[in-house]
Amino acid sequence: MEITTKNFAEQLPEIRKAIREASFFAIDCEFTGLASDRLIFPFDTPEEVYQKTVEANTQYIIVQFGLCAFRVEPVADGDDESAPTEPRLTYKCYNFYCYPKGRTHIFSCQGESLRFLADHGFDFNKLFREGLSFATEAEAERLRSDLKERQANRAAALQAAADGTADDAETTDVNMVPVPAEHQEQIDETAAKIEAFLKSDDKELIVNNCNGFQRKLIYQMIEHKYQQRISTSTITLENNHKCIKVERKRTAEEDQAIEQKRVAQENEDLQTMIGLSVVLQELSKARKLVIGHNIFLDLLYTIRQFFKPLPTDFKEFKKLTKEIFPLLLDTKYLCTNAEIKVNVNSSILAHVYEAVSKAPFSIPKVLSGMPEHGYSVEEQKEHEAGYDAYLTGLCFLGLASRFNMDLQNLTKDTTLKQYMNKIFIARLLDNNYINLNGKEPTHSREHIFYVTFPETWRTGDIVGKFKPFGSVHISWLNNTSAFVSLHNRIASSSVLKTIGYHPGFAVHSFAQFTQMKLDLDLSEEETIPVVQGNKELMPEQLPVPNEPQPQTTPTRKKKQKKKGKH
Amino acid sequence: MEITTKNFAEQLPEIRKAIREASFFAIDCEFTGLASDRLIFPFDTPEEVYQKTVEANTQYIIVQFGLCAFRVEPVADGDDESAPTEPRLTYKCYNFYCYPKGRTHIFSCQGESLRFLADHGFDFNKLFREGLSFATEAEAERLRSDLKERQANRAAALQAAADGTADDAETTDVNMVPVPAEHQEQIDETAAKIEAFLKSDDKELIVNNCNGFQRKLIYQMIEHKYQQRISTSTITLENNHKCIKVERKRTAEEDQAIEQKRVAQENEDLQTMIGLSVVLQELSKARKLVIGHNIFLDLLYTIRQFFKPLPTDFKEFKKLTKEIFPLLLDTKYLCTNAEIKVNVNSSILAHVYEAVSKAPFSIPKVLSGMPEHGYSVEEQKEHEAGYDAYLTGLCFLGLASRFNMDLQNLTKDTTLKQYMNKIFIARLLDNNYINLNGKEPTHSREHIFYVTFPETWRTGDIVGKFKPFGSVHISWLNNTSAFVSLHNRIASSSVLKTIGYHPGFAVHSFAQFTQMKLDLDLSEEETIPVVQGNKELMPEQLPVPNEPQPQTTPTRKKKQKKKGKH
Repeated sequence: MEITTKNFAEQLPEIRKAIREASFFAIDCEFTGLASDRLIFPFDTPEEVYQKTVEANTQYIIVQFGLCAFRVEPVADGDDESAPTEPRLTYKCYNFYCYPKGRTHIFSCQGESLRFLADHGFDFNKLFREGLSFATEAEAERLRSDLKERQANRAAALQAAADGTADDAETTDVNMVPVPAEHQEQIDETAAKIEAFLKSDDKELIVNNCNGFQRKLIYQMIEHKYQQRISTSTITLENNHKCIKVERKRTAEEDQAIEQKRVAQENEDLQTMIGLSVVLQELSKARKLVIGHNIFLDLLYTIRQFFKPLPTDFKEFKKLTKEIFPLLLDTKYLCTNAEIKVNVNSSILAHVYEAVSKAPFSIPKVLSGMPEHGYSVEEQKEHEAGYDAYLTGLCFLGLASRFNMDLQNLTKDTTLKQYMNKIFIARLLDNNYINLNGKEPTHSREHIFYVTFPETWRTGDIVGKFKPFGSVHISWLNNTSAFVSLHNRIASSSVLKTIGYHPGFAVHSFAQFTQMKLDLDLSEEETIPVVQGNKELMPEQLPVPNEPQPQTTPTRKKKQKKKGKH
Repeated sequence: MEITTKNFAEQLPEIRKAIREASFFAIDCEFTGLASDRLIFPFDTPEEVYQKTVEANTQYIIVQFGLCAFRVEPVADGDDESAPTEPRLTYKCYNFYCYPKGRTHIFSCQGESLRFLADHGFDFNKLFREGLSFATEAEAERLRSDLKERQANRAAALQAAADGTADDAETTDVNMVPVPAEHQEQIDETAAKIEAFLKSDDKELIVNNCNGFQRKLIYQMIEHKYQQRISTSTITLENNHKCIKVERKRTAEEDQAIEQKRVAQENEDLQTMIGLSVVLQELSKARKLVIGHNIFLDLLYTIRQFFKPLPTDFKEFKKLTKEIFPLLLDTKYLCTNAEIKVNVNSSILAHVYEAVSKAPFSIPKVLSGMPEHGYSVEEQKEHEAGYDAYLTGLCFLGLASRFNMDLQNLTKDTTLKQYMNKIFIARLLDNNYINLNGKEPTHSREHIFYVTFPETWRTGDIVGKFKPFGSVHISWLNNTSAFVSLHNRIASSSVLKTIGYHPGFAVHSFAQFTQMKLDLDLSEEETIPVVQGNKELMPEQLPVPNEPQPQTTPTRKKKQKKKGKH
């Protein structure tokens, strides 16, 4: 179900109920841009990846939040033979549009990201007009206390006016903005209109066609000359121009009634400003299993946008994350399970779904808890956050079937426990997850070397240099640098001492490399697929070289030519 | 006429013709955000405003460019008595959507700006899907030379392949990525399918459901085993998934034909990448009068987005601007003309149009040169760049009528000459324009003082302190600082020596103020209307205090209460 400002207030009770009754959730987000992974090296630690991501401080935002609440209904006792032995599964899926309302809110976009979403049917007109506002916890608190103070001040002023204790000294001439000669005529004309209005039976007088300064002058004139006889308010015409509405002076009771209405409206507006954050707070408070596919960025952006700024300290981040979402499961990390990998070649969400739709997996039947707002996997709504959340849930159920998990006691499942609170990190060659529950494993880096070489070198040149040390694995960084890992680790210690010389070729230990604090320009690798949302950011293990274009000539020939040129 | 990627190539010749035949242009832009004017002080020089704007380095972009080409057709000789004595006026108006195509293009948005545009009917879905690409001159040059090099390399490689001189040594095992065990089955299956394909009569074989790494492995296997027998290419399915298309080996002639098609397509793609910049280049080359209303930001953003980075040096900026647009007219600055001001109270575009639609002005009849794509002022398409450009042109014609300008010799008109190449700057109290043709006038600042005071102070408190020096004009900066100008300049020299002491009150000369390099937080003044496009950013002369809300109590009471609180 699509949720925008049009139906948020009305649906909120239902959404809260869905969260309360759910057994677990699947979530997915759409962003205005992806964090740059240009600075991620294949042997970075998860901590380094986190810190680089936080330091890059991109200002991308979540513009769609998909929340799919799955409910596992208890199996009948078994006394009744006809009762189903499988639990009944239902889901309620919400697709929230979210967009910052505040005037001062500035965010960034990647040209490609918005084009990609628009091409996939994302309705940006709806987003900008009807997107739900949001606020971090601190922002929400500030909004609440500011409003409280403003309302208290007004209440006191209103009381003072009613008691006749208000101080009128400040309406003296000394406070007035002098009226520039060219505006005097307009001011005089307006005064004449007000005189006529006061003698008429008209209920109101609208003064329009003024810019801000002119309105200021007119308000000043009114306050000075007509304070006891008329009340004013600012209204906005359909064409968005502002006007002054002039009415006869209201009584204290009328003022009070208007104030009450205003307070009610302001309180409602406050809820609107906090908007989607209310749902996220509710989700956090539920303390239930939250599932996502390739959830690293979703998680970071969600915390930053709806909860708190991201800590620079990695341990703090883990602590905060578990405070917000105590039970997280990343299905992309679950796909690294050896038994699953046999049948799930690719962990791109759509590929996972395809794989788990067949034996040895089986996706149990899941019914929409809101039949008129259900999804169908035939719809191909990929990259709609709600749909992707739904699909993630189905994938999880499919994957879970491989281990015959008890859906009613998921968090107690021993297999699942190994994958719980582990967040997959793409692009890393071994340490490919963040462990929210503790430290990540460390791996020796002694057999890994950082090499730089002439632009014309290819795999063979590097392999050649390392021949004395046995076979190697090369992880290209760009066309002049790479990591080389030895298969035979014992040979590691002799590399730096004995490797052959070549002009423009240099070898560094991994320890030396980490001291370099490189800011390599990896931007040449534009061919690495940049894909949205749950989709693969990177292939499983190795950087992908150029996809061949319609091949008039094999790729390697191009390279070879380049060699000839230099 | 709306121009997007759907009709750009087709309409370009007509657009060029319209530019060639035009007598003058009106332009307008819609942005993703407005430059922050938080840092602008009312007595800044235009140079300071320019520099602050450039230094703020906002990443907002133009998303719609309106170009209205007006043509004044020559009056008949006069031999024929029935010939019209007034020149015939026509216009062709283009509303260009523009949006960055490149993957790496990142830009900023103000939440409020996009909401405002969407509320006014701006179609963002169309923008992101069909917006025209653009490039600066340097980017366009780089794109051209890169493509040229790539095509030359391919041509040489193709020649080498045809000549049989290509070096095949690099297909040896040493260059191959080792196939991880879990992928071996898929590779073997694919090889079997290729064998079957080669024996079949099928024209092609599609290998799908692979991620990037798997495709890499398959390409490698194909190149290794089937290089002489099959050709491959990457294709993208409707669901955006990539596949490998396998065909029988092409002949040299087939490869050549494919290469020719590819070159043609690439050249066309290059034009698409440069996109709207082609039109802007054409507009610049026309060396004709270009009119805009409140054109400062439009001009800066246009130069930065379509031509060159903005120079930090102010003189360089003027030089560059005149190189790009030698004849600029800002109708907002024209409205500061004393004779016009009498009848045009507010220089908000819509207000100007209303004012010049009546005597003593008269807007001549202007016919659409593309009748099916004309605008009507009844349409209320405000904030569509094309419409606003059209309206700006009409306003100019109305304003010009006040001086009986000869539309056929506009640039020779003596009145207009005084306003030419002067760019209005909002928020400044006296130096309110940039003079592209020379230096701006300088004004003495000796009678201006920068004062800071307790939060509880109001106008009267400041006026009171300055009483010994005569009447003053106060320009508020925020609730603890303001500029005070003396009307009696002779009293200036005694202010610092003799002004009365008050705790928390401090007075500085303007010269002292300029040494402070303040970064005042003016953000409290959220009530200053932030309006889009051609609209007023600021009232003519003074900051506007809070617009009264529906007044249960007059604004000043609120202030007074606050006083009581502190």
